[in-house]
Amino acid sequence: MEAREAEALATSAEGRAISGRTRVYVHLAHPSAHVRTPQTFNREFRRRGLDAVAVSIDVAPGDLSPLVRGLRGWRNLAGIGVTMPHKETIVADLDEMLGTSRHIGAANAVRREPDGRLVGLNTDGAGFVLGLRAAGHDPRDLRALLVGVGGAGRAIAWSLIEAGVGHLTLWNRTGEKAEALARQIREVLPAAQVETGSADPSGKDLVINATSLGMHDDAPLPVDVSRLTPGMVVSDIIMSPPRTRLIEEAERRGCAVQPGMPMLTYQVELVLRFLRLVPDGDIFPAS
Amino acid sequence: MEAREAEALATSAEGRAISGRTRVYVHLAHPSAHVRTPQTFNREFRRRGLDAVAVSIDVAPGDLSPLVRGLRGWRNLAGIGVTMPHKETIVADLDEMLGTSRHIGAANAVRREPDGRLVGLNTDGAGFVLGLRAAGHDPRDLRALLVGVGGAGRAIAWSLIEAGVGHLTLWNRTGEKAEALARQIREVLPAAQVETGSADPSGKDLVINATSLGMHDDAPLPVDVSRLTPGMVVSDIIMSPPRTRLIEEAERRGCAVQPGMPMLTYQVELVLRFLRLVPDGDIFPAS
Repeated sequence: MEAREAEALATSAEGRAISGRTRVYVHLAHPSAHVRTPQTFNREFRRRGLDAVAVSIDVAPGDLSPLVRGLRGWRNLAGIGVTMPHKETIVADLDEMLGTSRHIGAANAVRREPDGRLVGLNTDGAGFVLGLRAAGHDPRDLRALLVGVGGAGRAIAWSLIEAGVGHLTLWNRTGEKAEALARQIREVLPAAQVETGSADPSGKDLVINATSLGMHDDAPLPVDVSRLTPGMVVSDIIMSPPRTRLIEEAERRGCAVQPGMPMLTYQVELVLRFLRLVPDGDIFPAS
Repeated sequence: MEAREAEALATSAEGRAISGRTRVYVHLAHPSAHVRTPQTFNREFRRRGLDAVAVSIDVAPGDLSPLVRGLRGWRNLAGIGVTMPHKETIVADLDEMLGTSRHIGAANAVRREPDGRLVGLNTDGAGFVLGLRAAGHDPRDLRALLVGVGGAGRAIAWSLIEAGVGHLTLWNRTGEKAEALARQIREVLPAAQVETGSADPSGKDLVINATSLGMHDDAPLPVDVSRLTPGMVVSDIIMSPPRTRLIEEAERRGCAVQPGMPMLTYQVELVLRFLRLVPDGDIFPAS
């Protein structure tokens, strides 16, 4: 290769070629073939003019701990993204979990400090609440029903409480999990208005599906949609399909609807700030 | 972000966006800011239509072993490139070194086998010999002088012997290192015509500089250029500047010259084959 050609590459079609200075964001999954995170983050890096690139790491559960240990020495690591099946298991390999993330026990973003320490954060709940607010639905003082307390559901429950929700009902197919979460929240925040109950949406202001029901057309609906009434806010965290049957049924009944995509959009923003790739500050400036 | 925008990204300006399926080539260095390897490899990946991306890892010597252990579990890892200061120390973290690489004791490329085993290769010498041959200078039966037996020099010595060089004289500033290399080669290949001697190029067919003398204009020349005679082949492995003072002095005296760049070009080809990213086969088809 001519030295000249190598030089030409330094200003590639992408505006900036990957160099020895480029910071690398790695996204851990297993399998990884169908994740969309590299595309999402590379689009953001490009849009913001950041010298960073996102790549995917397919790592099996048994190989996660050594990999994470190894990443501590990667000096130009921009950060670590985490998804299935590693969000909970990675916590044992981290030095610290920020804020309520430590109660949730699952991380989707990890920051490498300059000394190699690894700090985890869960942005599922905060991303969900920011998405709601952006659509004009502040959860403060609302009566909410949350169906499903798996990883994302637990994070959303904590963030609703932090956002000042008026009352939160938890329902889960395995009832003990909902009960354990309600108990845990009350232990940490004794004033929190949270309890387990039925999946009946009657009388709620905000109804949230955090189960996987709705990813496939032939599954049952997560709540009885005949009990949805006009004025309720109905949200589904499922992103594929972008509009689930729950969203469509709710809209038909005069509810305000909130599909899954805004939660992801605001999580990207939160992760970029957490990784110090973009300056901190209010996501919604005072208006 | 709209789902539509994410889709549009799947066919980026680069022709193919980085996805969860993309294989990742990591290049280990310390520091890494000035390496050009990501640019070189990404250009090759693009030119050949490979779904692979090269990124740089800046890792300090003390962090190398844990990092390499962690890389064993990275299933979509395309391979590991290695440069200063890790080429020798990484060998202890590998499971196997291929061919004469095990005598050289330094690796610049590492392949991850599907079971996580790591296999190392040194392409410095083979890349150098392929570059020579491509320029029409087959080292077979030539009388050669090699000045400098650091990492690259040792690899070149082994490859010249493998290529059937007629006689090889080694010179090094620290004479014991040249003596040890000559002894090692004769132990492995008792018929090898290799010995230590002076840096005087008189009577040689092929003169190679494998020292760093020539990277800076004010350094002494690695051999006495007044003793170069027309018809000799004079090579310098230094790539920056692309034409060293040795190359210019040799050309002025009627020598054939071989600068450093072809050695790199053929190494890239050798590494891509070693990593099974391109099919194996003769680099120079029978003509």
